[in-house]
Amino acid sequence: MSDRAPASPSAPPHFADRLVTQVRKLGHPLCVGLDPHLAAIPAAFARGSMQAGDPASAEAVDAFLTAVIDRVAGRVAIVKPQIAFFEQLGWRGIRVLDGLCARAREAGLLVLLDAKRGDIGSTAEGYAGAYLASDAAMPVDALTINPYLGFDTLEPFARVALGAGRGLFVLVKTSNPGSGDLQDREVDGEPLFGRVADGLAGLESRLVGPATGWSSLGVVCGATWPDQARRVREALPRALFLVPGYGAQGGSASAAVQSFVEGPAGREGGIVNSSRGILFPAAARGTPDARTWERAFDEALERAIGELGDAIRG
Amino acid sequence: MSDRAPASPSAPPHFADRLVTQVRKLGHPLCVGLDPHLAAIPAAFARGSMQAGDPASAEAVDAFLTAVIDRVAGRVAIVKPQIAFFEQLGWRGIRVLDGLCARAREAGLLVLLDAKRGDIGSTAEGYAGAYLASDAAMPVDALTINPYLGFDTLEPFARVALGAGRGLFVLVKTSNPGSGDLQDREVDGEPLFGRVADGLAGLESRLVGPATGWSSLGVVCGATWPDQARRVREALPRALFLVPGYGAQGGSASAAVQSFVEGPAGREGGIVNSSRGILFPAAARGTPDARTWERAFDEALERAIGELGDAIRG
Repeated sequence: MSDRAPASPSAPPHFADRLVTQVRKLGHPLCVGLDPHLAAIPAAFARGSMQAGDPASAEAVDAFLTAVIDRVAGRVAIVKPQIAFFEQLGWRGIRVLDGLCARAREAGLLVLLDAKRGDIGSTAEGYAGAYLASDAAMPVDALTINPYLGFDTLEPFARVALGAGRGLFVLVKTSNPGSGDLQDREVDGEPLFGRVADGLAGLESRLVGPATGWSSLGVVCGATWPDQARRVREALPRALFLVPGYGAQGGSASAAVQSFVEGPAGREGGIVNSSRGILFPAAARGTPDARTWERAFDEALERAIGELGDAIRG
Repeated sequence: MSDRAPASPSAPPHFADRLVTQVRKLGHPLCVGLDPHLAAIPAAFARGSMQAGDPASAEAVDAFLTAVIDRVAGRVAIVKPQIAFFEQLGWRGIRVLDGLCARAREAGLLVLLDAKRGDIGSTAEGYAGAYLASDAAMPVDALTINPYLGFDTLEPFARVALGAGRGLFVLVKTSNPGSGDLQDREVDGEPLFGRVADGLAGLESRLVGPATGWSSLGVVCGATWPDQARRVREALPRALFLVPGYGAQGGSASAAVQSFVEGPAGREGGIVNSSRGILFPAAARGTPDARTWERAFDEALERAIGELGDAIRG
């Protein structure tokens, strides 16, 4: 990558350095989520019955997201495929995802796979080997992971990420209404999500990048909870935030960048994801015409880029 | 299934009723874990380089686990593929897993997919649709899920499981050394895992089976923590326990069935998983001879069946 952060020739690329460098250059932290809800895919891309069990649906997803990737290349730093929607299509869906990840990376986009994986030791190694290792079967640049099993279960992911220059985003405070059921429960006077954040400090330090000072150990922290985001930022000053819930889930641009701090090109320190609001813009709903979708898509993309760019500069 | 519990003709099969009926008939609660660690697969089944990136490795996994499934059919009620080891092989691994799940179900085995999935609303629906729906791309009988995101995120899984007669096993107290990092933290005088168990009581009731009274809402509760298992059993008297960690991870047969209660054919109320101890028995290590592996496999299988059968009767 031409704009990778300078490092010793033998060092692997560093995820956070690459991401932050690219976000500074583009002037906004938008991440485009690749969530191919079958029922919402524009008619121009539909194939077969558009049911999960129909192999033609995987071809439709491929055609649709290939168009999306080609339109966002050079305009955003990173895309986030949500693997559940590919798993829904069986192994053919995973084969499509594999091709899309490769295409996105060839186009210079970073790929964050939203898989929320988590398991004990040797199994966590299996997941890390699947996606993060330098010889991974389906290599991506970063992965979301779930901490419920304990900090020891994050270690295999961290080890592989460190060796291969990949990134991790640990679920800390999610954007859904029930996220408080466990995450907000008080443990010794502090909410559990705060204890999770505190427990990640060691990994955060180990994964700090030489060029930007940001860590490849990131956190997931929903746009719907700005106060909680401040608590997590205090615990983890160098962690990149993956902020879901901007747009469709009700979070505003200014709430989404609540945890960001001053940097050389505006406030920085994370990425803000939008999926449905960009992929399936209201203005293109029900249209059988690809051009109408393209126009509505580009408008939604530019609007999100503009709003988030304003938010980090304002 | 000929021994499915009696129910109205229009009702879907009920996972817990089917599982418990079969366990009673066989006289033991052993579940065989299908964890194809590439480095451990017997030489008799090896193909190509046995590296994750080599497509021949997926063929080796297929050949090996086909032999395993054929040997356990009729001797155990249920098998538990660990999806991480298939994901490690990319989409070819998922295609192999798909075929193995179908083969196991055709042989009368129940299939519990150990995937520990969890995500917010519409994404949880995607995962449930992938594995649990009656028209799932890769249908299995039950799925492990992670509760960290909150109880609302379990609802889509429960709805699909209820409609299709499938089962769920929610992570409550895992078997790894660091499981206490979050799961044991005290919340209002109770450990978090206990709060998780308490919060599952509503789902447990909704998924109770008409024939046996056991619920298709189960829990994962490691064999390494018998005291904690008692706490979970108090909260969830009708939940089936998936007990990992028997054998290789250091739990004994009597500890593994700690949470079981008296039933018509010995103590019952869960399944006890063994993976490596049966798949990769020490007596067959390094042998290039398929017959040596078969003999060692059968011995390890019968030993586990015997120990667990004694434990539920003794």
